[in-house]
Amino acid sequence: MKNIEFHMYESFRERLAALKENRFFEFAVISVIIASALEIGVKTYDLPNYVVSITNHLDLFITVFFVIEISIRFISDVDKRKFFKSGWNIFDTTVVIISLIPVEDSEMALLARLVRVFRVLRMVSVIPELRMLINSLLKAMPQLGYVMLLMFIIFYIYAAIGSYLFHNIDPYLWENISISMLTLFRVMTFEDWTDIQYATMEVYPFSWIYFLTFIFFTAFAFLNMVIGIVVNVMEEERQRESKEQADAAGEPTLVDVMEELRELRRMVASSNKVNSDN
Amino acid sequence: MKNIEFHMYESFRERLAALKENRFFEFAVISVIIASALEIGVKTYDLPNYVVSITNHLDLFITVFFVIEISIRFISDVDKRKFFKSGWNIFDTTVVIISLIPVEDSEMALLARLVRVFRVLRMVSVIPELRMLINSLLKAMPQLGYVMLLMFIIFYIYAAIGSYLFHNIDPYLWENISISMLTLFRVMTFEDWTDIQYATMEVYPFSWIYFLTFIFFTAFAFLNMVIGIVVNVMEEERQRESKEQADAAGEPTLVDVMEELRELRRMVASSNKVNSDN
Amino acid sequence: MKNIEFHMYESFRERLAALKENRFFEFAVISVIIASALEIGVKTYDLPNYVVSITNHLDLFITVFFVIEISIRFISDVDKRKFFKSGWNIFDTTVVIISLIPVEDSEMALLARLVRVFRVLRMVSVIPELRMLINSLLKAMPQLGYVMLLMFIIFYIYAAIGSYLFHNIDPYLWENISISMLTLFRVMTFEDWTDIQYATMEVYPFSWIYFLTFIFFTAFAFLNMVIGIVVNVMEEERQRESKEQADAAGEPTLVDVMEELRELRRMVASSNKVNSDN
Amino acid sequence: MKNIEFHMYESFRERLAALKENRFFEFAVISVIIASALEIGVKTYDLPNYVVSITNHLDLFITVFFVIEISIRFISDVDKRKFFKSGWNIFDTTVVIISLIPVEDSEMALLARLVRVFRVLRMVSVIPELRMLINSLLKAMPQLGYVMLLMFIIFYIYAAIGSYLFHNIDPYLWENISISMLTLFRVMTFEDWTDIQYATMEVYPFSWIYFLTFIFFTAFAFLNMVIGIVVNVMEEERQRESKEQADAAGEPTLVDVMEELRELRRMVASSNKVNSDN
Repeated sequence: MKNIEFHMYESFRERLAALKENRFFEFAVISVIIASALEIGVKTYDLPNYVVSITNHLDLFITVFFVIEISIRFISDVDKRKFFKSGWNIFDTTVVIISLIPVEDSEMALLARLVRVFRVLRMVSVIPELRMLINSLLKAMPQLGYVMLLMFIIFYIYAAIGSYLFHNIDPYLWENISISMLTLFRVMTFEDWTDIQYATMEVYPFSWIYFLTFIFFTAFAFLNMVIGIVVNVMEEERQRESKEQADAAGEPTLVDVMEELRELRRMVASSNKVNSDN
Repeated sequence: MKNIEFHMYESFRERLAALKENRFFEFAVISVIIASALEIGVKTYDLPNYVVSITNHLDLFITVFFVIEISIRFISDVDKRKFFKSGWNIFDTTVVIISLIPVEDSEMALLARLVRVFRVLRMVSVIPELRMLINSLLKAMPQLGYVMLLMFIIFYIYAAIGSYLFHNIDPYLWENISISMLTLFRVMTFEDWTDIQYATMEVYPFSWIYFLTFIFFTAFAFLNMVIGIVVNVMEEERQRESKEQADAAGEPTLVDVMEELRELRRMVASSNKVNSDN
Repeated sequence: MKNIEFHMYESFRERLAALKENRFFEFAVISVIIASALEIGVKTYDLPNYVVSITNHLDLFITVFFVIEISIRFISDVDKRKFFKSGWNIFDTTVVIISLIPVEDSEMALLARLVRVFRVLRMVSVIPELRMLINSLLKAMPQLGYVMLLMFIIFYIYAAIGSYLFHNIDPYLWENISISMLTLFRVMTFEDWTDIQYATMEVYPFSWIYFLTFIFFTAFAFLNMVIGIVVNVMEEERQRESKEQADAAGEPTLVDVMEELRELRRMVASSNKVNSDN
Repeated sequence: MKNIEFHMYESFRERLAALKENRFFEFAVISVIIASALEIGVKTYDLPNYVVSITNHLDLFITVFFVIEISIRFISDVDKRKFFKSGWNIFDTTVVIISLIPVEDSEMALLARLVRVFRVLRMVSVIPELRMLINSLLKAMPQLGYVMLLMFIIFYIYAAIGSYLFHNIDPYLWENISISMLTLFRVMTFEDWTDIQYATMEVYPFSWIYFLTFIFFTAFAFLNMVIGIVVNVMEEERQRESKEQADAAGEPTLVDVMEELRELRRMVASSNKVNSDN
């Protein structure tokens, strides 16, 4: 009895898997994501009532479609545990589930709208090339994490000093360490930083040292490390690829050459031995 | 009869081809393109009537010259179908044909002027080094396309959120998703972005997170990916070149070494066999 | 007698070394550094009196903790002279010793605060990944030093010219060579540089050449050289690593192949000799 | 008689060459260049009369010192024609000769001051590391030249279009093609570019396309090409160096391995022949 049920389930699963691979299905998914994106964009305009009513119906349709689509993906997967090991699947499911929560009252309406915005990100999880781009970015993350920590330490130290020294010059910019860090981020983007500098220089004429060293440390260190990381990640990628290519093409390496030479040596040695025995 | 005609055409074609390769002809073409560029530039100044009349005559001359030049290029080409497979030829022909359309009335005068501006781009199609630069840029395009799409998705999501949240703070900057995207592009270029941020922070004190993450995603991701693509394209170019060089110089590869070794092994093996037979 | 003392000292040293390696000790050190950082940040806010008193006690605790920690590090080290050859140890000790100096009166209070800020930098000396980041940055310093010198020369020349020419246009920006250099640094960061340019162009209509060449030299040269240095340092690092890897894995090099070949040749030669002797 | 004269000259030349290589002489030259730089800087300040008189005497001393130094360099050189083939020697001589021209009257005083500024650049020609930096920058020039030409064409086309379309909106920014190019350079540096854009968008609502594409073309194309060129030049440098190193260390190449193998093959072949003859 159970076996028959399993068999029915299995044949159902296979039909779903076939549907999932179908190009029309893929096309439909991308179309609905684009429709979802357009709906989000359109809602930012002032709309007549009947258009609002249309977008509400569209929203319901999109929500239902996404639930069905995720269900198909989940059921058609052979190994259910593996399904939730993929970050992309977890992301897709989370976005779909959250946008299921009904939000009728006006207070939550804004939140509901905001959550629906992240549906657009499903585009990334559906297009393989975008997924690869994000993956290669994530690969640089561990190294980048330490760079960010170092930048944070530099910001923290400069913000503390700035807050101690310039507190009374312009409290709006240097009141405490958090506001100082925001001000320093502004300095780092070169946004009206000279006005800030000139104001402090009236009290501390040498405060230009503070700003110049900060700009040097952040701009240069940042550029230096970002380029370093990117070139590093690319280089590793390249080496891995070229090794795989060489392996795939069966191209010989120096190791193969050495083995061949040692074999040859054994043969010559045995030949010599035979000769001298003769 | 037909044969003679063809023969005459062929000899005419060859004379044109020789003309095309002639250095004076090349020099004349570049000179006329520069004249055309100068004419375009001069017309942006307020000019006395007689100069306007001169530029009109010059314009006629340039138009006729370009028609003749493109004709020479086309007729002198052996394979006519191949001529229009080169993007540069299509571009040249289009620019020349469009500037042929007579535009007398004042309404179209501006459009006619604008079209003539693109004649300057013919400089790129005539100088091989510039053509190579553009080609290497176009080679990065497929990869760049996906980066642009990813950037667009990031912009779209942030613009939607910005439009939902900040709509009432400054409609001039956040009225709808299109205007918000333009505002975000401005933020990405760091142009007066802190004023925008401070305005939103008065209503949402934590809106600095919105701006900082946006700047981080766009600036960092952009830099990361542009460098990545450039280094990648260059690396491929370099590998292809070094391989071609090695092939051209007949330099041995590890594959050649292995073949030589196997040949040697066969010889030693046969030598051993002869010896033991002895 | 002395031997026993030494023995006791040695067993004490070993117990400290074990403590130093202990994960709980490391965790405690990082925690105290973070507490120290938080204390510095908190002090930039306006605080009620009892919190100030708490931070004062905390400060005392941190100072004592750091003294003990540095002592443990120093005593547990076998080779005392080697201890002060590490830049990180010197840095740690200096920061701890300076923050020991008691600063009670209000005049020195600001200085005392500033010195304590550098305690946060101890985070870098404690986390190995950050230490590596800084080391790789320092490795680029010799090359960078000359780039900085070249940039300084460019700045100096442009500042002298600017000061000679634009002195009377806006003394606030061009009064003498130091102020001109600060103005040029502002121009290099593109901060309101066009206003400065438009002001000078009213007197010297061709002064845009001054600004454009300066921006070109500094921006382009800077970018060019920074990228060059980074790529260079990374490349050397990579070559060194790949060589070490090959050595560690015992992978053969072309030198090994040649040796093997020469050995083989000797064997064949002797074999030939035996044969012809036969 | 002539021979003796030549001999005397030769011994004089050798003594000068020895002086030129002397470390104290090098140190003196660098000191005088620094003094010359300081004099230039000091003169930008308002000075009391007696300091002006000191700087005038100092200036005379520097001028005489430089003339003597260049003479020593020239005389001590064996091959006089080779002397003026080095761009650095030509630069040094030109700077020294120009600053010889006496400029007493107040009109030329500014010019005289400006010429003296370039003495600071002699620092570059004296310090070998700076000379190398400049040389490596100059090596990228041919490629860079074409990039600059391409950028100029893009600027020219956009400036022409901008001048045609926006002429009446703000003549101060778009009056003719030259002023438009300066405005576009400002847009490229992101300096208050949104104000310019908003002004044009009031007349042409789609003019953001003009600005966005311009920023994209210049910023992206520029970054792309600069990185490309730098990486390219560095890569060539690296390959040349690694080849030189391998040559210097006498490290074997695949070509050597192949030769060795072919030699071995001949030996085995002759051995086989001997054996079969036996």
